[in-house]
Amino acid sequence: MKKTTILLAVAALMMGACCHKQEASTGSTAEAVVNNIMQRKSVRQYTGAPIAQDTLATILRAAMAAPSARDWRPWSFVVIDDKSQLESIFGDNMNMRMFRQAGAIVVVCADTVHVSPTRENPDGPAVPQVNSMWRDDMGAVCENLLLAVEAYGLGACWTACYPFADRMAPVREALGLPPTVVPYAVVPIGIPTGDSQPKDKWDETRIHHNRW
Amino acid sequence: MKKTTILLAVAALMMGACCHKQEASTGSTAEAVVNNIMQRKSVRQYTGAPIAQDTLATILRAAMAAPSARDWRPWSFVVIDDKSQLESIFGDNMNMRMFRQAGAIVVVCADTVHVSPTRENPDGPAVPQVNSMWRDDMGAVCENLLLAVEAYGLGACWTACYPFADRMAPVREALGLPPTVVPYAVVPIGIPTGDSQPKDKWDETRIHHNRW
Repeated sequence: MKKTTILLAVAALMMGACCHKQEASTGSTAEAVVNNIMQRKSVRQYTGAPIAQDTLATILRAAMAAPSARDWRPWSFVVIDDKSQLESIFGDNMNMRMFRQAGAIVVVCADTVHVSPTRENPDGPAVPQVNSMWRDDMGAVCENLLLAVEAYGLGACWTACYPFADRMAPVREALGLPPTVVPYAVVPIGIPTGDSQPKDKWDETRIHHNRW
Repeated sequence: MKKTTILLAVAALMMGACCHKQEASTGSTAEAVVNNIMQRKSVRQYTGAPIAQDTLATILRAAMAAPSARDWRPWSFVVIDDKSQLESIFGDNMNMRMFRQAGAIVVVCADTVHVSPTRENPDGPAVPQVNSMWRDDMGAVCENLLLAVEAYGLGACWTACYPFADRMAPVREALGLPPTVVPYAVVPIGIPTGDSQPKDKWDETRIHHNRW
């Protein structure tokens, strides 16, 4: 009977521990998400090890979940793992050492033209329309990608390609991009060597109330 | 003794449950982050309840943690809770019903000019320099903000202001923005009524390998 009491106490303790864990887990979704946002950093030094294919797929899935003006989703991705082509693709304009050590390189592309019926004639034919907001979408795409990278303990660096003509031209030619598609950013992803730290950018003076 | 055995079995089961939970919890940082990205949605219907000040501060802290080209951090935020001014600020260009029901409205602003020493003369005087990449930063700022909102179980809607002159003019005037600052986006935040669902945007055809 004493043994039973002890076992009951142990069981109760365990139940308590389980319940506590559950509570913490419920409250910590926000914490995990915000912490991951605060921990995101530009990582430029990688071990050279490859990235698991299913992890890369999840990272691209996250990138594609970005918000999109008029839901036009201008994004596409070219994943480069044939490193023998790196020099011809990125030439002298990019940090080649960073690219050679990356486990994968994602060229984040944007179609500047959307083909669909117009708002004025929604039942009419699909026609090419200039997308005046593709660039806004793409910032969110890159951020989603970087946040997923951080969540997996990987590192990446958002390297701007657009709007620099000298960076875009060789990438566009080497990858055979369609005429309306721009290479927006080049993002090497790799296992971090661990030398990069996030910045604390909090600045209360950037917040105004009701007026500037 | 039979009771003891049952209790032992229950205890073992609970231990198992706890261990399982722990494993899931360790592996689930990435899961929580990616899941939050996939669950983010445009929410346009709110209960009208206010947002806790410390939650709003954390959301803005997350927004400010965005990556920034040359680390110029062009962002500022005007938090609007004086709803009597909504009509004069946003006029007929915006979804006023959405704004009236929001718990808080954040006008996400961008300074298009950065004042600092130039790259060519880093020890020289601070001079105004046009920031050609502020728009890329701002997409990431908005996405961080929206992801933090989602993590707290709140809802928001990224409403474009830039590049539309008819939307920007009244906001700029009502808020008294400095000449080089643009109102980039207006983001109402509120307790969701629960009618909005995320979209599944996964599309494997958007991924190319080594060439388009």
